[in-house]
Amino acid sequence: MAIQVALVGTGLVGSAILTQLALPTIAKHTVLVSVSNSKRTVFSPSGISLPLAADFVQTKGTELALSQLVAQLKEIRGKAEKTVLIDSTASPAVANAYPEILKAGISIITPNKLALSSGSALFDSIQAALDADPSIRLLHESTVGAGLPIISTLNDLVRTGDKVKRIEGVFSGTLSYIFNNFSPATPPEEPPMFSDIVGQAKKLGYTEPNPHSDLSGSDVARKLTILARLLPETPIPLPEGYLSVPTSSLSPEGLETLEDGDEYVEKLKDSDVEFEQMRKRAEQMGQVLRYVGVVDVEKCTVQASLETYPATHPFATSLGGSDNIIAFHTERYSRPLIIQGAGAGAAVTAMGVMSDLLKLV
Amino acid sequence: MAIQVALVGTGLVGSAILTQLALPTIAKHTVLVSVSNSKRTVFSPSGISLPLAADFVQTKGTELALSQLVAQLKEIRGKAEKTVLIDSTASPAVANAYPEILKAGISIITPNKLALSSGSALFDSIQAALDADPSIRLLHESTVGAGLPIISTLNDLVRTGDKVKRIEGVFSGTLSYIFNNFSPATPPEEPPMFSDIVGQAKKLGYTEPNPHSDLSGSDVARKLTILARLLPETPIPLPEGYLSVPTSSLSPEGLETLEDGDEYVEKLKDSDVEFEQMRKRAEQMGQVLRYVGVVDVEKCTVQASLETYPATHPFATSLGGSDNIIAFHTERYSRPLIIQGAGAGAAVTAMGVMSDLLKLV
Repeated sequence: MAIQVALVGTGLVGSAILTQLALPTIAKHTVLVSVSNSKRTVFSPSGISLPLAADFVQTKGTELALSQLVAQLKEIRGKAEKTVLIDSTASPAVANAYPEILKAGISIITPNKLALSSGSALFDSIQAALDADPSIRLLHESTVGAGLPIISTLNDLVRTGDKVKRIEGVFSGTLSYIFNNFSPATPPEEPPMFSDIVGQAKKLGYTEPNPHSDLSGSDVARKLTILARLLPETPIPLPEGYLSVPTSSLSPEGLETLEDGDEYVEKLKDSDVEFEQMRKRAEQMGQVLRYVGVVDVEKCTVQASLETYPATHPFATSLGGSDNIIAFHTERYSRPLIIQGAGAGAAVTAMGVMSDLLKLV
Repeated sequence: MAIQVALVGTGLVGSAILTQLALPTIAKHTVLVSVSNSKRTVFSPSGISLPLAADFVQTKGTELALSQLVAQLKEIRGKAEKTVLIDSTASPAVANAYPEILKAGISIITPNKLALSSGSALFDSIQAALDADPSIRLLHESTVGAGLPIISTLNDLVRTGDKVKRIEGVFSGTLSYIFNNFSPATPPEEPPMFSDIVGQAKKLGYTEPNPHSDLSGSDVARKLTILARLLPETPIPLPEGYLSVPTSSLSPEGLETLEDGDEYVEKLKDSDVEFEQMRKRAEQMGQVLRYVGVVDVEKCTVQASLETYPATHPFATSLGGSDNIIAFHTERYSRPLIIQGAGAGAAVTAMGVMSDLLKLV
């Protein structure tokens, strides 16, 4: 009655998932039947040794063909309670295959935002596959807030009949780190330059190799799309997914295509004066800058933007490091339900994946 | 394949549970087979109409005999995927029957803290019944923080291999309201008297009829017991349950046995000077008073007490109303994972019960 697990993606998060799959609490319910990286795959219905899995796929793996893997999983799925594919890639090809995977009777657990935050065509066909067979699940706790219980809390609010009015928060760990340090509640005597902080964040591994993709706000827009689509009868239409979300980019024009991250940070210096002016203007009014996302059901809007908050606001005082903070304003929770904590990192992201897996047990 | 539900307790929380059971998201998975109040019970394997359930038990109910109800549920449980008893009473008799109920193959969902926070004898026999049959569950999300995802988050941390170091928080909605108003981060010019605030809390329905049981701290000690017992290999032994937790009582000696709540508040005036001195002393050091609970795994201690916090601490700045706030300090979350929001109220408590029920679907 174990759950058959196929893991696709063996990067930082994938490796953390393999580590957590080996925990006795999880291992007693699961058997790893396949592991794939971006090029190779191994498939073994009798189970793959977890400590050796990553090596095994390197040395013994055959060329990855996703459709073939799905066919193989479909063939063995009758032998277990459930068969689950974990997508810990950032691959559009895997995301586009979700409808096919679900139709084959295979559930999906994913920290990958692509499939759920892109255009309606893909999203609707995923939804149709799920509606066709209620025993198949698509779980994605770690697409928003990593291991923080954001998706499950929103689902619980909705399913128990609460009315969500507004969701507001700091959704990007990277932008949280940048603004917690660039615009703290108590400013230092010699405030740092914006580009220096971005460079620091890059060194700490908080940004993508090129910080453009973080500063563009698209990561936040994707998370907002995922949350908005969980609301009943999707009150806010997002036909083109995250591209439908009004998003303020902090990345200067012309730098989108730079391939070298260090060069990006160097060129960002040209914008330091502008960011410093924004910071100062806010400071003079007793405010701080925070990059936030809002899903406002009452106003029927979704938006990702740089905003000012009073220096006494929780977004100013209680955030630190690369914390996420998400506030749910609902009919029942007039004072918001707030969840805060590290919103990025391999171990906490893998925790979100495992908590989904434990829901299937 | 529906879940058979027997509800025991039709007070404020029980009524909210009946309302939420009628939601389409829940009703499609469940059938209400029994409802009981403290005196009467109805049992109908074919299902009881939800809007009429509370009236029905009043007019058509027969005398409640818990053992008989358990026997009836045991008899019909083969006809459904799962059979669940929801205990929304405050009854020790029901709590003491948990082992018998579980052994009969009936899962339990409960917002009632009694069974899980009392002595080891009851707790161990509950645990033994659960260990004997992994298909039977005891879920209790709303015993701590009402609808806030406290229990599920702690379980996820533990099951995914994180090491919990410390859990710290404001666990009592009543004491949160009292100290948020008696000792706010920004004190008013004319600070109110402690007994006045307790009287207000009583008027708003935030306290028990006699505020002694809130001010004694035992509610907090019970919640800490429940959390400590969820930690792996119970690192902190609590042989007598909440009675083993060092707990500072704020209720003056000699008032424990007063039956009249108004008289209690009147007599509490004798302690106003003492509370005012504590508040002032804290204020002079830039601090506020908060009644907190701590489970400290590293120090192997559990404690409920009145403490001081800097006026800039989240417990001082971001709390309001009757909010709970709970911070998990773990190996992964060195900056804590924090959950905050209303920690009491019938609708949010029922939400916690329903989120447990949805886990069984």
